[in-house]
Amino acid sequence: MRKVAIAAGLMGAACMALPSLANDSVMQITKDPKQWGIQTGDYANHRYSKLDEINKDNVKKLQVAWTFSTGVLRGHEGSPIVIGNMMYLHTPFPNNVFALNLDEGGKIVWKYEPKQDPNVIPVMCCDTVNRGLAYADGIIFLHQADTTVVALDAKTGQKKWSVVNGDPKKGETNTATVLPVKDKVIVGISGAEFGVRSHVTAYNIADGKMVWRGYSTGPDDEMLIDPEKTTEHGKPVGKDSSLKTWQGDQWKIGGGSTWGWYSYDPKTNLMFYGTGNPSTWNPKQRPGDNKWSMTIFARDVDTGKAKWVYQMTPHDEWDFDGINEMILTEQKIDGKERNLLTHFDRNGFGYTLDRDTGELLVAEKYDPVVNWATKVDMDKSSKTYGRPLVVSKYSTEQNGEDVNSQGICPAALGTKDQQPAAYSPETELFYVPTNHVCMDYEPFRVSYTAGQPYVGATLSMFPAPNSHGGMGNFIAWDGKKGKIVWSNKEQFSVWSGALATSGGIVFYGTLEGYLKAVDAKTGKELYKFKTPSGIIGNVMTYEHKGKQYVAVLSGVGGWAGIGLAAGLTNATDGLGAVGGYAALSQYTALGGQLTVFTLPTN
Amino acid sequence: MRKVAIAAGLMGAACMALPSLANDSVMQITKDPKQWGIQTGDYANHRYSKLDEINKDNVKKLQVAWTFSTGVLRGHEGSPIVIGNMMYLHTPFPNNVFALNLDEGGKIVWKYEPKQDPNVIPVMCCDTVNRGLAYADGIIFLHQADTTVVALDAKTGQKKWSVVNGDPKKGETNTATVLPVKDKVIVGISGAEFGVRSHVTAYNIADGKMVWRGYSTGPDDEMLIDPEKTTEHGKPVGKDSSLKTWQGDQWKIGGGSTWGWYSYDPKTNLMFYGTGNPSTWNPKQRPGDNKWSMTIFARDVDTGKAKWVYQMTPHDEWDFDGINEMILTEQKIDGKERNLLTHFDRNGFGYTLDRDTGELLVAEKYDPVVNWATKVDMDKSSKTYGRPLVVSKYSTEQNGEDVNSQGICPAALGTKDQQPAAYSPETELFYVPTNHVCMDYEPFRVSYTAGQPYVGATLSMFPAPNSHGGMGNFIAWDGKKGKIVWSNKEQFSVWSGALATSGGIVFYGTLEGYLKAVDAKTGKELYKFKTPSGIIGNVMTYEHKGKQYVAVLSGVGGWAGIGLAAGLTNATDGLGAVGGYAALSQYTALGGQLTVFTLPTN
Ligand SMILES: O=C(O)c1cc(C(=O)O)c2c(n1)C(=O)C(=O)c1cc(C(=O)O)[nH]c1-2
Ligand SMILES: O=C(O)c1cc(C(=O)O)c2c(n1)C(=O)C(=O)c1cc(C(=O)O)[nH]c1-2
Repeated sequence: MRKVAIAAGLMGAACMALPSLANDSVMQITKDPKQWGIQTGDYANHRYSKLDEINKDNVKKLQVAWTFSTGVLRGHEGSPIVIGNMMYLHTPFPNNVFALNLDEGGKIVWKYEPKQDPNVIPVMCCDTVNRGLAYADGIIFLHQADTTVVALDAKTGQKKWSVVNGDPKKGETNTATVLPVKDKVIVGISGAEFGVRSHVTAYNIADGKMVWRGYSTGPDDEMLIDPEKTTEHGKPVGKDSSLKTWQGDQWKIGGGSTWGWYSYDPKTNLMFYGTGNPSTWNPKQRPGDNKWSMTIFARDVDTGKAKWVYQMTPHDEWDFDGINEMILTEQKIDGKERNLLTHFDRNGFGYTLDRDTGELLVAEKYDPVVNWATKVDMDKSSKTYGRPLVVSKYSTEQNGEDVNSQGICPAALGTKDQQPAAYSPETELFYVPTNHVCMDYEPFRVSYTAGQPYVGATLSMFPAPNSHGGMGNFIAWDGKKGKIVWSNKEQFSVWSGALATSGGIVFYGTLEGYLKAVDAKTGKELYKFKTPSGIIGNVMTYEHKGKQYVAVLSGVGGWAGIGLAAGLTNATDGLGAVGGYAALSQYTALGGQLTVFTLPTN
Repeated sequence: MRKVAIAAGLMGAACMALPSLANDSVMQITKDPKQWGIQTGDYANHRYSKLDEINKDNVKKLQVAWTFSTGVLRGHEGSPIVIGNMMYLHTPFPNNVFALNLDEGGKIVWKYEPKQDPNVIPVMCCDTVNRGLAYADGIIFLHQADTTVVALDAKTGQKKWSVVNGDPKKGETNTATVLPVKDKVIVGISGAEFGVRSHVTAYNIADGKMVWRGYSTGPDDEMLIDPEKTTEHGKPVGKDSSLKTWQGDQWKIGGGSTWGWYSYDPKTNLMFYGTGNPSTWNPKQRPGDNKWSMTIFARDVDTGKAKWVYQMTPHDEWDFDGINEMILTEQKIDGKERNLLTHFDRNGFGYTLDRDTGELLVAEKYDPVVNWATKVDMDKSSKTYGRPLVVSKYSTEQNGEDVNSQGICPAALGTKDQQPAAYSPETELFYVPTNHVCMDYEPFRVSYTAGQPYVGATLSMFPAPNSHGGMGNFIAWDGKKGKIVWSNKEQFSVWSGALATSGGIVFYGTLEGYLKAVDAKTGKELYKFKTPSGIIGNVMTYEHKGKQYVAVLSGVGGWAGIGLAAGLTNATDGLGAVGGYAALSQYTALGGQLTVFTLPTN
C-alpha cells in the first residue's frame, strides 16, 4: 500500500500510465488515509481522516514525536501535506518550501526559496500568511504571495513552470492554496481591501497556460455567467446581473476576492467557492447589491461556467466576506438523501444548500449573539427570499458615513473567518472553530488609488458582551437542522482549522498555542498541549511506518494575531483587530514551528 | 522549601532582612536543586543538578511537557533561569526578556523589550547570540548586545538601573552573561575581531556604579596587576608584564576579549575567567607574547586585583581564545585533596590547575587530532615551562603572511568553543561538548579602523581528516589524569552546553536539533528528541510542583551556525565556518524555541 503511494508521490505524471489527471491522483491519495495530499484533506473539504490508532480513549497519552522550525516568523496558516514517505511544508512570506524525508527523521531533501519583492508585504491585508501547498501527479503547487503560481517537481524541488496571476502593485496578492483538479490547477486572488477586481483562474497543470478565468464582477462573459443558464434560487440571473448592481464603473474596483478554500464534486464536475467583500468597506460609496461579491459560486471546472450563484450578503456593510469553505456532504434531509453544501459564513449564518441546484435549505445563526440580521428570509414567495433581514440599528449604511455603529455582532472577521471547519461522516456533525467577537464600525469616504488601501472604515473589536467573556467557541453543528449540538468556550477566537478522525475525536488549535483534542460526540476536552506559538494552522494527520501522527503548525498571526505579527499596538490598527486581541501578548510570541504528535511506543 | 524560594525570588533585596548580598542569594538558590539561578548552575560552573527523578532507567520515557517560541530567530545560546515559580528567558538580539509564570502554564507576566540600534549586529563577530540572564536579590540582570547592563525588578520587569559598558561604534559588544557576586555584578566585553582593548568590570548591584575595571592588556594599574604580588607559575609577573610583550601602542587595540563564562570561589574570594585572542588574527603584525591575551585570570572580586595569571597560548597564531569556562572542583590528585580549576581550551588542551595558586598540574589534548603543538611543556625547570611546543608546519607566524598553512587541528573555533562542559561530583568526570574540526589559515596584513573588522586571516574549515568523518565528539574527561574516558562521535560540533544530573545521566544538544541523554558512566545514548531547530543553548533542569523538568533552547546559529543564521553561503565567509558547516542546512532551519521535557504522569 505504502509502496504504491510512494510511486504516485515521487515519480510524477510523465513516467506513469495512470493516473493521468490530477483528479485521479488527488482522489487516490484522498482514499488512502496514510497520506494528506491537499490542504482540505479531500475534495469535499471534510478534513476528516479514517485513521483511528489515536482515539478518544488513548489520546490523553499523546506526546510530541518531533518538531521542525520553519525559519520564518509571523502567521503560519495551512498545514504540511504528506505523500508517501515525504512531507512538504510551506512558510508565510517569503513562502519557502521544505521537502522532508520522514524515513530519515525529517531530513531536508530539498528547499525552494523564492525571492519575492518585500513590497508585497504591505499590500497583504491580514498578515503574510499562506494556506499551503497542494500535490497532484508528482507536482507540488505553491501559490506565492506575489501571485506567482509555481509547479515544483516533488522529487527534486525543481521548478517545472511558473505563471504570474496578478499584480501586487495594484494590491493583488495571494494567501490561498490551490485546487488541482483534472488537468488544471485552479487559483484565486486577494485584494478586496485594495479595490482589486477579483477572479478565479484555471491553469494547465502541464505547462501553466491559462485555460479560463471567471471574474467576480463585471460583464457576463468575463464572469463566465450565462444570463439564461446560470441560476440563483433556481431562476436565471439574467443579463448584466453584476453590472446592474454597481454604480457606473465601480465594479472595476469592486473586490469580491477569492482567497478561500475551494471544493470540488467529481459527480457533477462542479467546484464551489465564495467571493469576498465588495470594495470599499464604506457601503455608502457603492450603492446596489454589488454582485457577485459575497456569493457562493458553483462553476464547471472544465469551462469555468457558473452553474449557480447565491449572494448571501447583498450590499455588504460589515466586511462579511463570503469566502469561507463549502463542505460537501451527502445527508438525509426530510427523509431524502441529498447532495449538500454546508457553509459557515462570516456573517454568522450557517447555510446548507443543495449543491446540485443551489437550493437554499437551511440558514441559521451558528452563534446566538449574531445581531446584525434577525434571520435569512426562507420564504420562497418573498421578494427578499434568501436575503438576510438587516437590523437597522446595526446597518452601517443606514447609520451613514462618519457615524459609529456600535455593538454589531459578529465583528468584521465574522463568526468564522478562514479557519476551516471539519466534518465527520460518522457523527454527521460539523466541527466549527468560531469567533465570539463584536464590533463598532464607522465608515468614511475614501478615494481609490491603485495599490493603496481602499478600506473606508474604522473598527473596534471586543469579546461578545454579556457572554462568557472569551472571544471564541469551538462548536459542533448539525447542518441539517441548523443547530449547535455542543459548544466549548475559548478565551480567544479559534483561528485554527479543525480535524475530525475516525478515533471519535476532533482536534483544533488555539491562539494561545494549545493543540486540543475533544470528544467528537460531547466536546469533552481529552488532551491539550502548549505548542511554541499561537496556532492558526490547520491540524492534519498521517500514518508513517504503521504509526498515526497528528501535525500542526504554530506561528501566531493572521488577522486576529496581526498585532503580534506586525508589531502593532494602536487598538484600531489592523482593521480593529489589534485592540481586540491585545491580551494575546500575555500568552504567546511569534513563531513558526511544526509539532508532530504520536502515541508512545512503550 | 518552595515558599522560601518564591519569597527570595520575588520580593527583592529591599524588603528582605537576609540575604543582603548576591552571594547569599545565589548560593541559596544554587543549593536548592529546584531552581536554576545563574547560567552556570552554580559559582563553580558545574552545570550539575542533584535532581534525580529523571534518571538513566526512565529517561527513555521523557516527553515534551510544553514549548515556547521566543519570537526571535538566529542563534539561541544560554538557557532560561528558574526562580521559585517563575522562569526568565532571554533572546538573541534584540535581547528581549520574558518572565513566565510556571503555575499558569507559562503565562507571560512581563516582557522587557529593549530598543537597540541594529548597527550593533554587524559588529558582532559570531552571530547575535546572548548567553543569558542572571538572578540575584530580586533582580534579573541582562547584558545587552550594545553593552548596556540592565537590572530589572524580577517581579515587575521594571528597570532599576542600567549602565553602558562599552561603545559598539568601536566594535565593543556583548554576548556573555554576567556574574552577580556579593554586592557587585561583574561583566565582560567582546570585540577582539575589531581590535577592542578588553576588560572585566564590576558594577554595584545597588545602583550600577562602576567599582573596578581590569583590562586584559596595558599598564599594570589599568590591568589591576601588582607586579610583585600577581604571579604566573608562582612567580611575580614583574613590572609592565603586558606592555613589554607588545610593539609600541599595539596593546591599545590588542583584543583579549572577556566574553566567556566566569566562575567564583567564595572560599578565596577569587573569580576565574579567560581572555580572548590578541588582535589582529595575523600574528606577524603583533610581535611578542601579547600579554595578557589568551590568559586565565584569578581576580579578587572586591578589588579586581589579579592574584595569578596563566597565558596558555602566548602570541596566538590561530585565534585560540582562552575564554572557555573554568570549572572549579575539589578532587584528590596524587592522594591530596586540592582545589582545582579545569579548563578546556580552544587550543585543544584540557588544563587542570591548582586554583588557589595557579600551579599547572595537567595539560593534555582532549582530542587526539590536535596537531599544532606537540604538548605543553610541563618541565618546571624549562624556559618554556607551561608553554605549548608549537609544530613549525602549523605555525602561521613561521609560514608567514599570505601563506596558507594547511591542515591545522583544531580549527580557529577550537576543540571547544563557548559551549560549556559539565562536571558531576558523583563520577568525578567532566562532560565536554567538542569540535572535531581542522582548518587552513592564511594571515594577511590589515590596518586598524575603529569599528571595522580587524581580522587579517582567511580560513577554511573541515571535519578532522582520517577520522570518523563527523565534526564533533561528546566526551567524558578525567581532569586529574588528563584522559578521555569515553567519546561519542557526532556529525556536527556539539555547540550546546552539557548538563550532568544525579540521575546518572548527561544531557546535551546537537546542531541538527537533537536533545540527547547519555549514561554518565558509559556515554551510551539513552534518549534523543528532535527539537525545532539546531541547539546551541545549554541544557538546564528544575523542579516545579514536585516534578523534574529539563529545558533547552533551540535556535541554530553561533559561529558554527553563522551560515544559516546570517544567510551566508560563500565557504570562507563567517571566518571560515560557512563552508565547514554547510551540510547543516540539510537538517535544520532557523528557530528560537524553548522545549521543556518531563516524565509522563500516567
Ligand atoms: O478581501 C481580501 O482580499 C482578503 C484577503 C485576506 C487574505 O488574503 O488573507 C483576508 C481577508 N480579505 C479578510 O477579510 C479576512 O478576514 C482575512 C483574515 C485572514 C487571515 O488569514 O487571518 N486573511 C484575510
Ligand atoms: O574575540 C571576541 O570578542 C569574540 C567574541 C565572540 C562572541 O562575543 O560571541 C566570539 C569569539 N570572539 C570567538 O572567537 C568565537 O569563537 C565565538 C563563538 C561564538 C559563538 O557564540 O558561537 N562567539 C564567539
